[in-house]
Amino acid sequence: MLTPKHWNSWERFYKANFINSLTGFKSATLIGSVNKEGVTNLSIFSSIVHLGSNPALIGYINRPEAASPNTLSNIRKTGFYTMNHIDESFVDKAHQSSAKYPEGVSEFEEVGLTPYFEKGFIAPFVEESKLKFMLSLQEIIPIQLNNTFLVIGKLEFVLAQDAAISSDGLIQLDKMNSISCNGSNAYYSTNLINRFEYAKPDLPIRKLV
Amino acid sequence: MLTPKHWNSWERFYKANFINSLTGFKSATLIGSVNKEGVTNLSIFSSIVHLGSNPALIGYINRPEAASPNTLSNIRKTGFYTMNHIDESFVDKAHQSSAKYPEGVSEFEEVGLTPYFEKGFIAPFVEESKLKFMLSLQEIIPIQLNNTFLVIGKLEFVLAQDAAISSDGLIQLDKMNSISCNGSNAYYSTNLINRFEYAKPDLPIRKLV
Repeated sequence: MLTPKHWNSWERFYKANFINSLTGFKSATLIGSVNKEGVTNLSIFSSIVHLGSNPALIGYINRPEAASPNTLSNIRKTGFYTMNHIDESFVDKAHQSSAKYPEGVSEFEEVGLTPYFEKGFIAPFVEESKLKFMLSLQEIIPIQLNNTFLVIGKLEFVLAQDAAISSDGLIQLDKMNSISCNGSNAYYSTNLINRFEYAKPDLPIRKLV
Repeated sequence: MLTPKHWNSWERFYKANFINSLTGFKSATLIGSVNKEGVTNLSIFSSIVHLGSNPALIGYINRPEAASPNTLSNIRKTGFYTMNHIDESFVDKAHQSSAKYPEGVSEFEEVGLTPYFEKGFIAPFVEESKLKFMLSLQEIIPIQLNNTFLVIGKLEFVLAQDAAISSDGLIQLDKMNSISCNGSNAYYSTNLINRFEYAKPDLPIRKLV
């Protein structure tokens, strides 16, 4: 058994890596935003959560403002931001976007990814991403326990180039080489084990063919 | 481009599957809880989020109370709950825990998983799970936009049987066959693509050997 006595004695990064991997595999996603001066910003986030389909709401956790100021500040000021799936072909560039670049510098240029705009919307997409969507800010909920924020956006539109959509609506992310991540620096490809039918109390577990 | 005009015209499950997969690969996790009468409850959740390492806080999204009452009610009343990683060997049983069993019935028995207790703690673990931890409730934040809840727990202790912990603290979930999921019914195994060093603005991307 590992207790606070153990992890509070660990070196800072060892502790962070361990605790970060307890929450399991996550979706690493690039969030694109822009400030009032038109400087684009791109940053990798791993705490994206599905909040509901009706209305379509998507959340993410933003670290304390001092640690990660630009994305949150841009979203507050402009009201719009993009999420962009990462695939194996540019996972290295996506990871590099986690570096702390000075304000006024665009991570797009620094890491070598291409901003792409849809008419009428100020927030930049990642052109290289095969699955991406525009969100409009609905609410920023401060989490006072540790000064983080739950940022909630409404789905405005989706760009799903070559998306492998199955007959029941699920996007087959494995076929698009979308990556999964663990902790803050480990990236994974995936293989489907199984899909199962909607579970009911009076029926046995059934594989979805 | 897909817009609300499209997804609002889709059949309910098609729409839910599509929107649910936009958030990418997630960590499917079993949450164990118990009511005041001692009836254990087990339910699969896919919206677990890392909130921070210091203090160690872990969140999850609970659906509206009418749709998913037992876990939230148990946590409110007892203050403790467990999270249990799922591996390939019992992914079918884990999925079956999503069925809506009547109150007073334990999902452990119904799906065929074994409750396990640590002395002094009321909430049940899943014995079969190789990585599991106890949380104490810190805060339930209502999300008024869609009547969901962000439930925040503090990490009390970790049971990491045969956990594959790397030299820098990261738990190698792929080596433990922990699964990842997409949508509400697709489960995946993973393969490490790469780990990268902590990114810095003035250094190129470096693989972590």
